[in-house]
Amino acid sequence: MSERFHVVPLEMHDSLVETAYQQRGFTPEESACGARMASNATWHGIRTHNALKALHLDELFGSGAGGCRPAASIEVVPSRFEASQVWNANRKMGQAVAYEAMDTCKKLADQYGVGMVSVDNAFHYLWGGGYVMEAAKEGYIAYTNCTSALAEVVPFKGSGLTLGTNPHSWGLPTTEAVGFPIVIDWATSVVSMGRVQQFARENVPLPPNAAIDSEGNPTTDASKATGLLPFGGHKGYGLALLNELMAGLIGGSLPTIRGRSHEEGEKNSTCFFFQVIHPDALSAGAFAQGREQKENVKAVIEDILGHGNENCLLPGQPEADGAARSGKNGGLLLTKAEIEAFDEIAGQCGTPAWNLEDFKAAI
Amino acid sequence: MSERFHVVPLEMHDSLVETAYQQRGFTPEESACGARMASNATWHGIRTHNALKALHLDELFGSGAGGCRPAASIEVVPSRFEASQVWNANRKMGQAVAYEAMDTCKKLADQYGVGMVSVDNAFHYLWGGGYVMEAAKEGYIAYTNCTSALAEVVPFKGSGLTLGTNPHSWGLPTTEAVGFPIVIDWATSVVSMGRVQQFARENVPLPPNAAIDSEGNPTTDASKATGLLPFGGHKGYGLALLNELMAGLIGGSLPTIRGRSHEEGEKNSTCFFFQVIHPDALSAGAFAQGREQKENVKAVIEDILGHGNENCLLPGQPEADGAARSGKNGGLLLTKAEIEAFDEIAGQCGTPAWNLEDFKAAI
Repeated sequence: MSERFHVVPLEMHDSLVETAYQQRGFTPEESACGARMASNATWHGIRTHNALKALHLDELFGSGAGGCRPAASIEVVPSRFEASQVWNANRKMGQAVAYEAMDTCKKLADQYGVGMVSVDNAFHYLWGGGYVMEAAKEGYIAYTNCTSALAEVVPFKGSGLTLGTNPHSWGLPTTEAVGFPIVIDWATSVVSMGRVQQFARENVPLPPNAAIDSEGNPTTDASKATGLLPFGGHKGYGLALLNELMAGLIGGSLPTIRGRSHEEGEKNSTCFFFQVIHPDALSAGAFAQGREQKENVKAVIEDILGHGNENCLLPGQPEADGAARSGKNGGLLLTKAEIEAFDEIAGQCGTPAWNLEDFKAAI
Repeated sequence: MSERFHVVPLEMHDSLVETAYQQRGFTPEESACGARMASNATWHGIRTHNALKALHLDELFGSGAGGCRPAASIEVVPSRFEASQVWNANRKMGQAVAYEAMDTCKKLADQYGVGMVSVDNAFHYLWGGGYVMEAAKEGYIAYTNCTSALAEVVPFKGSGLTLGTNPHSWGLPTTEAVGFPIVIDWATSVVSMGRVQQFARENVPLPPNAAIDSEGNPTTDASKATGLLPFGGHKGYGLALLNELMAGLIGGSLPTIRGRSHEEGEKNSTCFFFQVIHPDALSAGAFAQGREQKENVKAVIEDILGHGNENCLLPGQPEADGAARSGKNGGLLLTKAEIEAFDEIAGQCGTPAWNLEDFKAAI
């Protein structure tokens, strides 16, 4: 990495993030969930979903704007189905809802083999990969998708912005096989709108087929990009559509009003879907060469990364490398600009200042 | 369509296909499943997964080569999980296994909200989209994935062929909303190896980033293509990997020996995964504007296909159009070459000949 990082103790980071959330009216439990998610993202090198992003989003669209309701309670909707639950999150903090939903899914999976929780009236859970990664570390197969707040993506061959960037996240229990859980986690657009704006500022061309201009034509000129394209043409379009349809079945309303104006009788909130599978519920128990299930998964992965593919990465490897670097340094790795932003938050919270010189340089 | 089609009565097609399967030792029930799948694919305009392909595959890799065992019985593996089952298919015909697995998933979903069946020792089920489409027509959310027989795809940035073309298929209950179920159904490679061979014969360039040459470099020269690339770079790679990992958890062995040589103590069979969700198990019951769940899904789709996207297709629309054309003609639409191939099969089976002049031209 060319950028210079400084080592911030976990406790110092988490304490400030919790204080910031509590000052916005979130409960201690919610605030701890907010800190846990941000801390975990930063620990794994996910700089796009850190506490700064989370607190900023909360201010602009969340508790600062009525999109998220601190101290809201989750209502479990009555259901006749034993392995699945549906929740009305009442716009409770997304991270708190997501952690609880994953815990419920795991319990259901322990009993039924598979468990799922669908969530209506949700607010942004930040980093989907984080939830499935934690469950996968505990040995489960985990999945989540959600509808993104804003419709910024056009359907395949379309020109109107009617789909969210709608991410999918899968976590697989591969820690014993490769040292970390494989985490497949991405948005269904080629790039995010934040990335487009960054490219426009830096005057860097976009990859081909990532964005369209106001005429609906593909453009690599970030300054002219007005909408995002799904990755992989009609295939990524299908995956973006899947989240919209599941949300439509759960309780989400029109994608084009989501995250925007709120009218009487309308809904502008997002939906979440979570699912966990117990690995024993997949196993036929008859692996080649007398292998156990985990040994079999290891053999399969080694085969995939053999035959000339030794330098290929597994999804989740960059995050594992990030965590290893954080671990080696004994704390979270933040840039000067990030530390200054945290210092500003500390000032707003009335807690001790963050001074760059107090943090050692990362190795 | 520029190609000329002729109308073949369903019963005539199904009767011949059943006879062909039975003469290979398949039971009447299995043979009916084989005919049902082929008939359904052709009815929906899916010409790559018709009876000719199915019978040819069965001859080369299936009952003709020990890869598929006619009249095999499915063993249900004992499991402590109520909403999921694991089956040892003992290489029974894939179509028969898939229909039965979907039926089991639907029953489990009726009770638990979600049901799943994982299948070890499987043989090719042909058209995954067909199974999820049928379940979606009955109102369910259905999903299946499988490992493809041969490793023909390279990992992202790799050069060794270690992944199958590993398809995913989702079916959504949208018939009341748009007249047909949305079916998202595709392989995780950009194109199939069959398509590469066709392009090589016709001397047509491949799309970019679809294939690599023997040096591991991307090529659009179909005659030089030796391996396939996943669609959408690292994202499609993750989706291809997902099937391999699920198969590894179920009981599949190394991808590079799958569908190839069979050694003592090894396994070269594929795996299937099926899952069905009951739509009521997703619903929070609080749709905007007083809508019912189905009305809400319709409103969501209309929003997505509005705003300048009126000419965009939904996944499943081409299949619905194909079915409408078959329905209008009152039979299956086959080309001259296809009818000649069926006539050859009729000759082998000792059943009445198929003469082109006996079939009316399709409108």
